[in-house]
Amino acid sequence: MPPTITAFENPPDRGAGLARDMRVRWALEEVGQPYAVRLVSFTEMKEPAHLGRHPFGQIPTYEEGDLALFETGSIILHLARHHAGLLPGDANARARAITWIFAALNTVEPPILDRETTRLLEGDRSWAAERLHLTEDRIRIRLGQLSAHLRDAEWLDGAFSAGDLVMVSVLLRLRHSSPILDDFANLAAYVARGEARPAYQRAFAAQLAVFAARVPKE
Amino acid sequence: MPPTITAFENPPDRGAGLARDMRVRWALEEVGQPYAVRLVSFTEMKEPAHLGRHPFGQIPTYEEGDLALFETGSIILHLARHHAGLLPGDANARARAITWIFAALNTVEPPILDRETTRLLEGDRSWAAERLHLTEDRIRIRLGQLSAHLRDAEWLDGAFSAGDLVMVSVLLRLRHSSPILDDFANLAAYVARGEARPAYQRAFAAQLAVFAARVPKE
Repeated sequence: MPPTITAFENPPDRGAGLARDMRVRWALEEVGQPYAVRLVSFTEMKEPAHLGRHPFGQIPTYEEGDLALFETGSIILHLARHHAGLLPGDANARARAITWIFAALNTVEPPILDRETTRLLEGDRSWAAERLHLTEDRIRIRLGQLSAHLRDAEWLDGAFSAGDLVMVSVLLRLRHSSPILDDFANLAAYVARGEARPAYQRAFAAQLAVFAARVPKE
Repeated sequence: MPPTITAFENPPDRGAGLARDMRVRWALEEVGQPYAVRLVSFTEMKEPAHLGRHPFGQIPTYEEGDLALFETGSIILHLARHHAGLLPGDANARARAITWIFAALNTVEPPILDRETTRLLEGDRSWAAERLHLTEDRIRIRLGQLSAHLRDAEWLDGAFSAGDLVMVSVLLRLRHSSPILDDFANLAAYVARGEARPAYQRAFAAQLAVFAARVPKE
């Protein structure tokens, strides 16, 4: 039995690859693990069956035999630890790659999500425009620091790792709604390298197919 | 040589235990690992020596032999994986405990930090009061879901784990600035159980001593 993940039945991003199942799909493709997908509606996500898998009523979840996990970072770390391809063999290098998973989710993504929150949930408020600028200033600080760390390296710490997978995913969220990333040429190239990976392409096609299947045929 | 962590030379919270070195100190105390502390000033945090340890110029960092880590979640996970006391032995239970680390940092803490951002950095803006209410509504949703999961259990999933350590730390941040937590009696009791642990008490005293040492004596 392959593991089963959950994803939006009706993807709010219309298959742009921004829903968090994309990150897990990408990891599954990188390690060559086939998987099944259970699509859930917004109603189902708040019902007891799904809340039993994910106490906060979100996607994705991950089920493998009698193991049930939620949180994208945790699922990706689990896959990385049990398959080859997403973490280096050296113990110290592994710990550093895991550090980059946390850095992507806890240091780089928060200001990006803060901007998204104001853009998507507070767009009708008097402060929306002014606060968008504030959040963009904060994003620029983080991207400047990340850019200074990356310099002209291909990936964050040696070979491609789960840390890069999550960091590229976080930066992609920004690219869809703002030109900020283009001000950091090495980061834009870094994201493009991530997107060019065959595993990314397969994962993207799979999540887009969910949306495409909903579009009425002529 | 014990591991070395970094902490604020001049703690902005005046020793209230909200700086993130507190979380790492607590984990070190839980596993019985002695440690050294290097205090850094705000100026030093942005200088190359510290940026070499932490590309985003923050605290804490963790150095152990030739391994250097940053990101609180990653440091705690590293300690939990290499010492007894913070993760269960069963493989599935370990993966679930790690999931709670991510849930604390990526699902519960973001709306709490969003409220902090508006309170501390946008307090002079026209929208501060109205936006504080918005963020509090979002926090209540998350706490309600967490409360429903915890019910009358002592900890999130069986015995106390690194997931509880991080979750209690996240909720404590809220308690210092808002009465919201008091609306969820089981969560308030959960936080109190965490604070009552001897390892928490030792860690709290150690970080408070840094601030106390700066207060001029009569």
